[in-house]
Amino acid sequence: MDIASLRAQHPDHWKKACAIRVLTLDAVAAANSGHSGMPMGMADVATVLFEKHLNFDPSAPLWPNRDRFILSAGHGSMLIYSLLHLTGYKQATLDELKNFRQWGARTAGHPEYGHLEGVETTTGPLGQGIANSVGFAMAEESLRARWGAKVMDHYTYVIAGDGCLMEGVSQEAIALAGKHQLSRLIVMWDNNGITIDGKVELSDVTDQKARFAASGWDVFECDGHDPVAIDAAITAAKASPRPAMIACKTHIALGSSAQDTSKGHGALTDKQLIADTRAVYGWDHGPFEIPADVKAAWEAIGARGIATRREWESRLATLPAGKQAEFKRIFAGDPSPKITSAVRNVKKAAVETPKKLATRSASELVLAALNPVVQETIGGSADLTGSNNTKTADLGTFDPANRKGRYVYYGIREHGMAAAMNGMVLHGGVRPYGGTFMCFTDYARPSMRLSALMQVPVVYVMTHDSIGLGEDGPTHQPVEHLAISRATPNTWVFRPADLVEVAEAWELALSTKTTPSVLALSRQNLAPVRTTHSNQNLSARGAYVLAEATGKRQVILIATGSEVEIAMKAREMLEAEGIGTRVVSMPCMELFAAQDEAYRKKVLPAGTVRIGIEAGVRQGWDRWLLGERGKEQKAAFVGMTSFGASAPADRLYKEFGITAEATVERAKALL
Amino acid sequence: MDIASLRAQHPDHWKKACAIRVLTLDAVAAANSGHSGMPMGMADVATVLFEKHLNFDPSAPLWPNRDRFILSAGHGSMLIYSLLHLTGYKQATLDELKNFRQWGARTAGHPEYGHLEGVETTTGPLGQGIANSVGFAMAEESLRARWGAKVMDHYTYVIAGDGCLMEGVSQEAIALAGKHQLSRLIVMWDNNGITIDGKVELSDVTDQKARFAASGWDVFECDGHDPVAIDAAITAAKASPRPAMIACKTHIALGSSAQDTSKGHGALTDKQLIADTRAVYGWDHGPFEIPADVKAAWEAIGARGIATRREWESRLATLPAGKQAEFKRIFAGDPSPKITSAVRNVKKAAVETPKKLATRSASELVLAALNPVVQETIGGSADLTGSNNTKTADLGTFDPANRKGRYVYYGIREHGMAAAMNGMVLHGGVRPYGGTFMCFTDYARPSMRLSALMQVPVVYVMTHDSIGLGEDGPTHQPVEHLAISRATPNTWVFRPADLVEVAEAWELALSTKTTPSVLALSRQNLAPVRTTHSNQNLSARGAYVLAEATGKRQVILIATGSEVEIAMKAREMLEAEGIGTRVVSMPCMELFAAQDEAYRKKVLPAGTVRIGIEAGVRQGWDRWLLGERGKEQKAAFVGMTSFGASAPADRLYKEFGITAEATVERAKALL
Repeated sequence: MDIASLRAQHPDHWKKACAIRVLTLDAVAAANSGHSGMPMGMADVATVLFEKHLNFDPSAPLWPNRDRFILSAGHGSMLIYSLLHLTGYKQATLDELKNFRQWGARTAGHPEYGHLEGVETTTGPLGQGIANSVGFAMAEESLRARWGAKVMDHYTYVIAGDGCLMEGVSQEAIALAGKHQLSRLIVMWDNNGITIDGKVELSDVTDQKARFAASGWDVFECDGHDPVAIDAAITAAKASPRPAMIACKTHIALGSSAQDTSKGHGALTDKQLIADTRAVYGWDHGPFEIPADVKAAWEAIGARGIATRREWESRLATLPAGKQAEFKRIFAGDPSPKITSAVRNVKKAAVETPKKLATRSASELVLAALNPVVQETIGGSADLTGSNNTKTADLGTFDPANRKGRYVYYGIREHGMAAAMNGMVLHGGVRPYGGTFMCFTDYARPSMRLSALMQVPVVYVMTHDSIGLGEDGPTHQPVEHLAISRATPNTWVFRPADLVEVAEAWELALSTKTTPSVLALSRQNLAPVRTTHSNQNLSARGAYVLAEATGKRQVILIATGSEVEIAMKAREMLEAEGIGTRVVSMPCMELFAAQDEAYRKKVLPAGTVRIGIEAGVRQGWDRWLLGERGKEQKAAFVGMTSFGASAPADRLYKEFGITAEATVERAKALL
Repeated sequence: MDIASLRAQHPDHWKKACAIRVLTLDAVAAANSGHSGMPMGMADVATVLFEKHLNFDPSAPLWPNRDRFILSAGHGSMLIYSLLHLTGYKQATLDELKNFRQWGARTAGHPEYGHLEGVETTTGPLGQGIANSVGFAMAEESLRARWGAKVMDHYTYVIAGDGCLMEGVSQEAIALAGKHQLSRLIVMWDNNGITIDGKVELSDVTDQKARFAASGWDVFECDGHDPVAIDAAITAAKASPRPAMIACKTHIALGSSAQDTSKGHGALTDKQLIADTRAVYGWDHGPFEIPADVKAAWEAIGARGIATRREWESRLATLPAGKQAEFKRIFAGDPSPKITSAVRNVKKAAVETPKKLATRSASELVLAALNPVVQETIGGSADLTGSNNTKTADLGTFDPANRKGRYVYYGIREHGMAAAMNGMVLHGGVRPYGGTFMCFTDYARPSMRLSALMQVPVVYVMTHDSIGLGEDGPTHQPVEHLAISRATPNTWVFRPADLVEVAEAWELALSTKTTPSVLALSRQNLAPVRTTHSNQNLSARGAYVLAEATGKRQVILIATGSEVEIAMKAREMLEAEGIGTRVVSMPCMELFAAQDEAYRKKVLPAGTVRIGIEAGVRQGWDRWLLGERGKEQKAAFVGMTSFGASAPADRLYKEFGITAEATVERAKALL
């Protein structure tokens, strides 16, 4: 459909869509950066979606039963900023649009969760939004099954571009959605045939419709500029019993001289181009100027959902008061009040009947205590259920036959799992955790980073956390992955030493509202190191004195996880030689770094030899060995300096020199 | 086909395939770990492939024109170890099989490149092998076009499992292969319907054949136990003008009581089960015992390629001597002798006509000098060609119409690109480099780790390496990624400060045979800091004194990349106040760490204030600030402690306090 006939046939629609287009042009020009073409191309689809389908209420942006709109093609951020402004979201002021991409503005370069109401997830790194959306749709299915359609019954809409579909994570997401028949998930593909480097065919000849269909999706298509066709496609997609993809044939940078070119993908800032494009649009208004009638039409769309939201609120009000409070709690992300006592019971029992246990098995014990009382958890694993110890007896399997099930078989899809978990937390009402091998942090990294950036408390259960996994060899043995996760801002990396510390780590991980946690857990059995019960969560301070020197304190051994046992053994040997040795267990460096100087000094006083012990690389340890009153001449690290090898775990520890004997030797050499 | 009729109809085939199966059972039992089911299921396919199709010569494992066999489902490592032993690879002794997964054995838990001849790539992390294979096939196409089918003309065969196909990277690989019509690439899918967690349908309902077809592959299928059907399918696949996928319907752990179950995926070590399975096979021989006739039959298969290899050698010998030497050099991975002078010329010109330049643009200048003389480079980008500055005028575009082109448009597939580049180096004859934004290191991580583990010199061109990228915001701003790459063993992370250092980094990256390089390059323009020419590659020592203190040396500023300019400015300000200040440029921490103590001490002597300046997190820096004769009380770091933000670069540097002024303030406070 050409622009002239579009304008002629659908004048009201045209004006509304054009408001998006010119706001985009104006904001990108003001910022002198950004991406103009995508919002200009998808304005018609977005207009129809918001006008006729999306259930939303700008006056209640967090209304739990709203439809979710996810702009997976996050570089087109002006599309969502324009929509939020036009429909009347309070935070999306015209000034914010004028400040697009500037310091302090809510209108970040790419849409960021937590910056601006109405932005459901942070997108920009391609493929993340579509993969998040699977989590949103799973959370909705789960909550609908468990709470009833009366209070949970909505769609998740996604706009994705070719970039999203080329990223591998999209395949993981598509396959997962297909398997789970997520019929409330609708993906609108911005089929504009253009990427940054040129035409899509330069790098891809995939028949996307066939690809989605191969994974159990229903596929629709439409002229992405014809409002009637768009409406029909969305209507059909909503009625489909499977997840639906709508291939929207669009023109990137519609109406500009850069239309249908890769130039149109980027920032169109040329004044003449912008003026010419306005003329093509028949738009006679100045920069950032939206005529009152157009703004009113958009605001009417924004007001459309108020009644629906109020009806929903009255339905929620018919639930028993306790249920209402619970519903509100889980959507607020507040921790269950039952966590603390469940964790205490586990800790008590652990001390009463101590036994050797892999921390991954300890984690299963903790989950077995928590899952029955913390009903918002949704567990899962990337096809390593028995190894990650993530499934407990009560959960049931989430699948199309049992939407109430709380355990997800994610398949061999670490990245898709992580992205889906982000989506679940963002949806609200559930708290996901998921497992894989620590080494495959690598696969999940892009989404793990976004958990941290978005401040969403996903729990990553990373087992087989060192060379201690043994025979599978260096391809499966993490050595740099603790450092990788610790290098990432706003990430808690827990490496607990025994069942007590595992329980404490879970308590912290399930209680925070703003920080994702990585639980690094051993494959191999470990001796318990916490032998007396304390109600206090000692891990909450990140590090603490586990065993004090009996005589004069000459050595401090700092260790994490499976190496705490080695530190304790080394301490015994040193003490036997009259060398007073303190052992500090450091299950979470980030939490220790957050303690005040006085506490840190108490744990790590000056003047002793210090040795760090961890079966990983040293990077990140110098802070505690050389810093915090440490000294280069009196510090050493017992750990890895290379990749691992294939052999039984004990042999590897010996060959790589991570033993009590090696520790003692280093300590004595430094005294 | 049931086992009885298989045995009856194809007795010779059966025995050969059974040799693989029992060696697998025996080795896994001996190791008490490993994966039995996959080799037992795919033994028939592998036997037919090796017997009738694969061009190989165990006596010349590195013969450049051999067909490549890639076991993407690397957990089934005993399949390839058995094959290599049976066909007569010298290194694959029976003792090595008996030592499966033990310390020092070549038979690592998962197949590892460099440990055992005949293993073409390291697999185990799922999806990597199939994604490598695209690189193998691209290298073959490229070399065939440029050197002629006389010396380069072979297939790449892959065995992939459901795990490989569920990993997102497989989609990137499949789409890339489809686009490039890599007709010499044949993937045999082990369609056994089982994963670790249970049946595939637990997590996937994808129609894999339709999925491959959607990306332009030809698809075949066969009963994976019927040698006639397997042969027919491979024959058809070889004739196909497109990449081919053969869906091989197989039974995991064939013939055992664990057949067709997830138990069968793992280690079958039960004595009775093994005895029963042997009985089903009709195999009366002891553990690790292969009857002479069966071994002889396998060795005859191994000998099949000798003549072909010799013919190839005579064809190679018909090339002019210079060409022959060049062919051998590129397959040995030896650096081009032309690199040094090309780099020197760039360095000289840089000093003669200094100008402000982003290091990504500097990189393009260096490539423009190198690509024409180093013909084995193959460049590319994950859809950021203009931003990564990876394309030079002479390269031409690699695609089905121009196989001689040396530039690959990888599409929005960072992971697939990295994996393909690994495959290219492993194939031999080419040296790939590829670009994306530094932040998307995250997407490429699993393959970048394997570059390091395999010791293959891929060059990762990572531009937009800090908050200096500005308005795109924190989703695109790396802060932890330098630390991530530095935490990885055997990885050179270069962060050059100007054109001279960029040239030096490229010289090193293209000259090593064993280490991948990460080039972290700025988006923003930088002032040149190397103002006098030196033939010597100063970056080769990792760090060096860029500017000496004029008076008494009181402060050492250590900086990398874009922050060297800031250090130089801070030095000026400090010197103006009479505070003698040295600036150390540290383009590569790994190379500096490898220098002897004397040199390190010369660069970083004791006794001064030390400040590190880098627009990333501190992790990794304490070694140079607190260690190497540094002192906590006299050290500081000017960098990032959080994610970045959306704003112009200058504003971000100011807001995050990464400025000369902030540096001066810190230095004075510590004096």
